[in-house]
Amino acid sequence: MDNVLSVIPLGGLEEIGMNMMVMEYGEDMIIIDSGLMFPEEDMLGIDFVIPDFTYVVENKDKLRGIVLTHGHEDHVGALPFLLREVDVPIYGTPLTIGLVREKLREHKLDHVELVPVKPRDIVTLGVFEVEFIRVTHSIVDGVGFGIKTPAGLIVHTGDFKLDPTPVDGQLMDFHKFSEYGEKGTVLLLSDSTNAEKGGFTFSEKEVRRAFEDIFSTAKGRIIIATFASNIHRIQQVFDVAAMFGRKVMLSGKSMIANAQIALDLGYLKIPPDTWVRLEELRNLPDKETVLITTGSQGEPMSVLSRIATDEHKSIKIKQGDIVILSAKMIPGNERAIGRIINHLFRRGADVIYEKVSEIHVSGHASKEELKLMLNLVKPKYFMPVHGEFRHKVYHARLAEKTGTPHENVFIMDNGEVLEIADGIAQRTGAVTSGRVYVDGKGVGDVEEMVLRDRRRLAHDGIVMILIGLEKITGNIASGPDIISRGFVFEDASQDVINDVREMVANSLREHDSEIRGDKALMQAKIRSVLKKYLRNTMDRYPMIMPIIFEV
Amino acid sequence: MDNVLSVIPLGGLEEIGMNMMVMEYGEDMIIIDSGLMFPEEDMLGIDFVIPDFTYVVENKDKLRGIVLTHGHEDHVGALPFLLREVDVPIYGTPLTIGLVREKLREHKLDHVELVPVKPRDIVTLGVFEVEFIRVTHSIVDGVGFGIKTPAGLIVHTGDFKLDPTPVDGQLMDFHKFSEYGEKGTVLLLSDSTNAEKGGFTFSEKEVRRAFEDIFSTAKGRIIIATFASNIHRIQQVFDVAAMFGRKVMLSGKSMIANAQIALDLGYLKIPPDTWVRLEELRNLPDKETVLITTGSQGEPMSVLSRIATDEHKSIKIKQGDIVILSAKMIPGNERAIGRIINHLFRRGADVIYEKVSEIHVSGHASKEELKLMLNLVKPKYFMPVHGEFRHKVYHARLAEKTGTPHENVFIMDNGEVLEIADGIAQRTGAVTSGRVYVDGKGVGDVEEMVLRDRRRLAHDGIVMILIGLEKITGNIASGPDIISRGFVFEDASQDVINDVREMVANSLREHDSEIRGDKALMQAKIRSVLKKYLRNTMDRYPMIMPIIFEV
Repeated sequence: MDNVLSVIPLGGLEEIGMNMMVMEYGEDMIIIDSGLMFPEEDMLGIDFVIPDFTYVVENKDKLRGIVLTHGHEDHVGALPFLLREVDVPIYGTPLTIGLVREKLREHKLDHVELVPVKPRDIVTLGVFEVEFIRVTHSIVDGVGFGIKTPAGLIVHTGDFKLDPTPVDGQLMDFHKFSEYGEKGTVLLLSDSTNAEKGGFTFSEKEVRRAFEDIFSTAKGRIIIATFASNIHRIQQVFDVAAMFGRKVMLSGKSMIANAQIALDLGYLKIPPDTWVRLEELRNLPDKETVLITTGSQGEPMSVLSRIATDEHKSIKIKQGDIVILSAKMIPGNERAIGRIINHLFRRGADVIYEKVSEIHVSGHASKEELKLMLNLVKPKYFMPVHGEFRHKVYHARLAEKTGTPHENVFIMDNGEVLEIADGIAQRTGAVTSGRVYVDGKGVGDVEEMVLRDRRRLAHDGIVMILIGLEKITGNIASGPDIISRGFVFEDASQDVINDVREMVANSLREHDSEIRGDKALMQAKIRSVLKKYLRNTMDRYPMIMPIIFEV
Repeated sequence: MDNVLSVIPLGGLEEIGMNMMVMEYGEDMIIIDSGLMFPEEDMLGIDFVIPDFTYVVENKDKLRGIVLTHGHEDHVGALPFLLREVDVPIYGTPLTIGLVREKLREHKLDHVELVPVKPRDIVTLGVFEVEFIRVTHSIVDGVGFGIKTPAGLIVHTGDFKLDPTPVDGQLMDFHKFSEYGEKGTVLLLSDSTNAEKGGFTFSEKEVRRAFEDIFSTAKGRIIIATFASNIHRIQQVFDVAAMFGRKVMLSGKSMIANAQIALDLGYLKIPPDTWVRLEELRNLPDKETVLITTGSQGEPMSVLSRIATDEHKSIKIKQGDIVILSAKMIPGNERAIGRIINHLFRRGADVIYEKVSEIHVSGHASKEELKLMLNLVKPKYFMPVHGEFRHKVYHARLAEKTGTPHENVFIMDNGEVLEIADGIAQRTGAVTSGRVYVDGKGVGDVEEMVLRDRRRLAHDGIVMILIGLEKITGNIASGPDIISRGFVFEDASQDVINDVREMVANSLREHDSEIRGDKALMQAKIRSVLKKYLRNTMDRYPMIMPIIFEV
């Protein structure tokens, strides 16, 4: 439609993850971020989830560019999949572009045009003029956007917190946000992740204090697990290590790759000779070493997990080691992380984690910071983004408290369209949206039905019944043979297996050869008889697969 | 052995759950608690886990009795299974016995002798004199034990916190614990659950304040989800409801059963006419009603879950409802709980939960309380119980800080034996121990191998290949046919299925009829070819089941 701006979230408004926002005006369209989500616990076997971007593909002629807020996976992780379908330049700050370049190289998408942009620069994409605005967050070089559109000014905060003492000295650009407030902004889109939390989020610098405390008394090796993308945290480890005369080794492919990119671009400043390799590290006394690694979420194949279970080929935990899990325990991972902590303690390490020390701070704004952002931008309309429903509700309440009228706050779902024309915003409809599952190399070939089967198989396994019937008479020629997987420990349950065999044989004999010849019918009958039997005797519900063949 | 006391934990020392402690002296044995554990996330399809009590069954002639600290499932949940194997009286406080009686009735174990015991009473079981000592905890009528043995005095705290203002007015019996300290206690066994947490745990009464705040401003219905066993919490809801002129309905089978037992025994005191049934509730104005229900952990079939997803037949959420999740979010359940919260918000309720309000307090002692217990009892030896390794480590540190020498602190695993003779304790060996999985009606018929299969099936599903070979020639008579479950969405992946079929057919043709006749060999070959193909093309690892039959 003419003279109408459409704002369409395709992901990130019903989850923490897969952030993707479309803006469209006339013949021009831009996308803000294109991220993935890590699977929830019932998405069995799924590696990650990306937004359904059918709508973008259908309108790819309009697409003028993708602008990125920062380099976290939940903002850039779906790019390799989107870029198979559309060919369009990508704009981001230098570190974001550096991380994306590496990712696209792995996916053999080197041809994509990547454009580094400095904060306060403006990128013109069709009718959209996108200004990059520095924010502070748990990754270096994050930005939000001020977007000039024919329908008015839009502000998108990106992921942010108000860190008054950022590690890299790059302050939040309050001045730009207040400029947009002063000029009059029609719509603010702001990060809802921590909208449930009162007060202010601590500065990243607070972590340094905890590190200094630990380093000052440590007598052995120090091992620190954190996210590979947390360049600030890595910087602080290097700084504190240098202060206490320790050398640092990085472990884990993504950790090394990210640090190298940040180093090359000047975002990571390593004191001379502080970064060493494993061989050098081994020649140093324990009290002069630090190892930074991935695996803070208890991932079973990570370096930390292998160290914790004595499966790492060169690093063995010993008395005097200190292991610091410098990361949030993401809900769903606590038990896996807890097991790693137990293994490490058992092997003699002292383990320091979020629950017992201040060795992590969040990267997202808490209530007071969110209110300040609302105060600065003073938007006419407000849409909470980056959160589940509950986070959006809490954020919406803050908006109302700070003066946005209730009817001007839009709690939207993925796919819903907010239209702005003549200074008036309204919800008008929805476009195709949803979640696409990525499993191995397959994108979208695992759907809800397949997951239902996996859940069923996971819960009680599968019982296969093999029966050979004579072609002419329909008499049983072989079987019934029972094969099961994930059902019962077969040695222990020969009785059950025998009962099942007997029951199927009886069920076959009850019917005449004509019915026995009807495979589908016989399968249904066997399934029904067995299902009832297993429910009554064992209270279990395995998948039952009668396989009938003619001999 | 003579003159030797053996202390043998059979569960609860490597997990929060399945608590069970054996004490043995000469020809006498007693058991403290016999609990279950809820499954960890990789124990697919398992309903719960109980300790392996082989050692008890092998020595059942010695067993003089089971004493119970309190009625939580992690302390009494394995009783129905243990009592199929041993016939022995059970001692507990009246509420604990009331809850156990109900449980044994469900398992048709009514014949078991259940003996209610008051705090400060002493039960003599062979050489053991077990004194019941009142503690405060999140369930009514909890106790610890002072146990006089020929090898000295032992104190077991049970699960406790030091609540100075308990809801039922029943104070922690500090005097008894200090008496055991004064008399000289050889070994203290104490609850490690919150040993990572600094400070003091809040009193249960603090929750009342939060309830009063909420009730005083609520204009619609109030729905409160909590654990069915939390009689204190239920008491406080009734009290606050009466204060604000609201009637209370209880929902959920276990909730009603527990409240009725507590009411009958005088542990729950309900103001007249406050407990109403659903029919009465429906005739009352919204602002005069409270519903207490289970489902605080996001359990999919619970009343709360059904209400949240509009599947409850009579209760529909509407604008103005307040839902309070008055319980800890147990790690592993956060995402399920988060989804329920989202559903409730979406339907217009205001939802109040641990993260945003003080509507729950823990039932376990934090560091300062644990130190006070250590100060009171002044044990010669200390064994932290009720915790994972990390909790035991933190608790052991507290013991050392309060004066127990390092070498007198025993961090034990399940099955390990601590022997005490002539005032000296030492670790001497181990007995059979472990975890037994309960799945439906099956106890122990699901072992690690079955779980491995379930995890495999859960991750990538199963592919079955059906092949009919001619008996004499070994030629392919039918198939290969491919059936898969939980693998790929079949409509979307006909190509893969066709490729697989082709590949198996080729693999068969490559071999002469003699080899084709060797079923096991052909199965192995097909498996190997397919595994490689699926790894390379799809990066997936389904279970592969070649099924070859002769025609």
